[in-house]
Amino acid sequence: MKLQPVRGTRDFYPEDMLLRNWLFSAWRAISTLYNFKEYDAPILEHEELYTRKAGEEITSQLYNFTDKGDRKVALRPEMTPSLARMVLAGGRELVQPIKWFSIPQCWRYERTTRGRKREHYQWNVDVFGIETVHAEAELMSMLVDFFTAVGLTSQDLEFRVSNRKLLQVAIESIGIAEDRFNDVCIVFDKVDKLDKDTLLQEFSQIGVSEPQAEQLLRIAEMDTLEQLVQAFGSESEAIQELQQLFDLAEDYGYGEWLSLDPSIVRGLSYYTGTVFEVFDRERSLRAICGGGRYNHLLSTFGGKDIPACGFGFGDVVILELLKDKDLLPNTKLQVHLLVGTYDAESTGYAIDIAGQVRMNGLSVECISEPKKAKWIFRHADRIGAHWVCFVGPDERKEGIVTLKHMASGEEVSCTPPEIVQHVLGEQS
Amino acid sequence: MKLQPVRGTRDFYPEDMLLRNWLFSAWRAISTLYNFKEYDAPILEHEELYTRKAGEEITSQLYNFTDKGDRKVALRPEMTPSLARMVLAGGRELVQPIKWFSIPQCWRYERTTRGRKREHYQWNVDVFGIETVHAEAELMSMLVDFFTAVGLTSQDLEFRVSNRKLLQVAIESIGIAEDRFNDVCIVFDKVDKLDKDTLLQEFSQIGVSEPQAEQLLRIAEMDTLEQLVQAFGSESEAIQELQQLFDLAEDYGYGEWLSLDPSIVRGLSYYTGTVFEVFDRERSLRAICGGGRYNHLLSTFGGKDIPACGFGFGDVVILELLKDKDLLPNTKLQVHLLVGTYDAESTGYAIDIAGQVRMNGLSVECISEPKKAKWIFRHADRIGAHWVCFVGPDERKEGIVTLKHMASGEEVSCTPPEIVQHVLGEQS
Repeated sequence: MKLQPVRGTRDFYPEDMLLRNWLFSAWRAISTLYNFKEYDAPILEHEELYTRKAGEEITSQLYNFTDKGDRKVALRPEMTPSLARMVLAGGRELVQPIKWFSIPQCWRYERTTRGRKREHYQWNVDVFGIETVHAEAELMSMLVDFFTAVGLTSQDLEFRVSNRKLLQVAIESIGIAEDRFNDVCIVFDKVDKLDKDTLLQEFSQIGVSEPQAEQLLRIAEMDTLEQLVQAFGSESEAIQELQQLFDLAEDYGYGEWLSLDPSIVRGLSYYTGTVFEVFDRERSLRAICGGGRYNHLLSTFGGKDIPACGFGFGDVVILELLKDKDLLPNTKLQVHLLVGTYDAESTGYAIDIAGQVRMNGLSVECISEPKKAKWIFRHADRIGAHWVCFVGPDERKEGIVTLKHMASGEEVSCTPPEIVQHVLGEQS
Repeated sequence: MKLQPVRGTRDFYPEDMLLRNWLFSAWRAISTLYNFKEYDAPILEHEELYTRKAGEEITSQLYNFTDKGDRKVALRPEMTPSLARMVLAGGRELVQPIKWFSIPQCWRYERTTRGRKREHYQWNVDVFGIETVHAEAELMSMLVDFFTAVGLTSQDLEFRVSNRKLLQVAIESIGIAEDRFNDVCIVFDKVDKLDKDTLLQEFSQIGVSEPQAEQLLRIAEMDTLEQLVQAFGSESEAIQELQQLFDLAEDYGYGEWLSLDPSIVRGLSYYTGTVFEVFDRERSLRAICGGGRYNHLLSTFGGKDIPACGFGFGDVVILELLKDKDLLPNTKLQVHLLVGTYDAESTGYAIDIAGQVRMNGLSVECISEPKKAKWIFRHADRIGAHWVCFVGPDERKEGIVTLKHMASGEEVSCTPPEIVQHVLGEQS
């Protein structure tokens, strides 16, 4: 019998789960502050939801199979298609702007390498029904608030922002055929990852000549709006949207987190406008999160389009970064009180004490079978008990307890209802 | 494009998700009070984890398939095998008693009927390392505390309790061969569901004669410990364990929730001692939850046994019951404050106000694009905003806001930092 989980997947032991719940709670808290509502969809979806266009990494790595009813299904590789499906199914009942979030587990089937698993969790936040970059500006504000809440600053992180329409204008001005746009995006997305020769080769394979590719690479290196205005004029939608987004970032007060980076296009074919990715400034890690605008996704599913944008934020890279920066919370297991009993006749008394303390919202480990003092105090150490209350015939007859504070070793004698005060007193 | 989720699965729209999160939070809160620690395992496991013995419904309904790496895998039908795997892999590092809980989604592949889906969520609570029924008594106490917390009483619910060893003693005394035990359990589990003729037929198919079957059915109908003592004597482990469990239930104060019911055996082959199921007393629904002791599960996985017990508690039946009893919480969508702006120049002012209020932990919908008053107040109604603050040039210049309380229609003028007091004042 294999004791390891299926290749590329993770078990979460209690300490791991504390960390995961801490991260998810922070995501949920920020989402709620911005009035995003949580939703969820099945982890299993019809495969056709993902088989959009060839060339995307995400569709070539589907964790898909045929079920017993001969249905082609897949463990979801991303949440946006499920969201689009739900928005279409919800129809006019849904109040726009629709502001929803979810924390789905997403799957892919690819060769597993160090740090690249076959599943991860992803905070997904999306807005349907806002046409302007006001929506993107709010999404980025949420991200900045999240990063700030966990102790990261604009010294640590950089939002690299662009707009897909920029590349559209660019390929037009360079004389590349419009129908090459998706292919160009897929190669352009690798500008930071591949060397120049390989890039030129990949561009050549999709019918982009070397001089054209050179021009594209020059655009990828521009890093001010002024350069873009010089290259494409100030009237293009791409530039106006970028300008407005940077202005809103100043209104929100997170301007210093943002950089213009035309090399950002994102690997998914459905993006239509703003695109962004967040990186650690030291560039020691992969992208922490990314997103953008996808105004035409619903029509690819046969529905009426609603302007939309959103981001996805995985659980793996952020936890690596927070670990590097020593910003992870304490995940040592703890419990407020351990109640033990010395004799079988005191079992009922111990159970009663535990119940009273739990009624006040405190966590209690109750060992209702008789144990030796040595075992109880050793156990208290091992489970991180702050206080121990070990009762026997004397305590039971008098209706009192001896309460020991584990950190200081101090003992107090009190009645069961007084325990809560002592425990809370230490807490505050 | 199909807009419905895969057959037998559920989408969770925000109102559904509020309900699910409410239930999960209640489960987590009780678990924490009793010092159970949360864990999780992958939803996909090796199929061999579940292919124990033939005859169990759960293994005949596996949602299994072969993955691209030619691995036989399955969407987990239950959590206990994953837990056992993790306990074995964790080994000596894990402090006993191991007290863990999880809220996994579990899958099965069977014909879908009304109310029977292919996935559900399940609160799983397990203890490894306690040999006596003190562990079962604590698990049942948690269940009683949960039921009480959501408004259910012993008038509504009944814990039907038995012990697998009782059936062992019974088949021995009746003269049924010991190796028929698992088969007898599987038929015995249907005593409440099938008519007598069908039962006798099924018993006959596994080699139990009609007189023997009649005796088994008489045992199934006993409902006091006295009857059992008369039938099997007071020395058997089954009866002593049942007696101790009922005594502990009195210590805990939930004795009136428990009934003895020898017909309870549970459908899973791994149970070895205490078994129980909770039903609504009107018997209008399927079992709400169930569990028991399984001391020999680890050795079937090739490990060293540790005494263990636990329960599983699905999300579907309890929500049906709470709905019937009108005990579900309000799931109307709400938000503390809606901030809107009348003119584009006030966008920054609106964003600033929203940020200040969020810093105090309140949820704010900020419409940063200019809107007409009519749209804003209609939107406030639709999203359940308690307060609205709609700013324009006058407010911005004076550095004040007009705050409208939606329920009463009252308006107050205040500065942005004063908003929080008003909103919290209404809350309390």
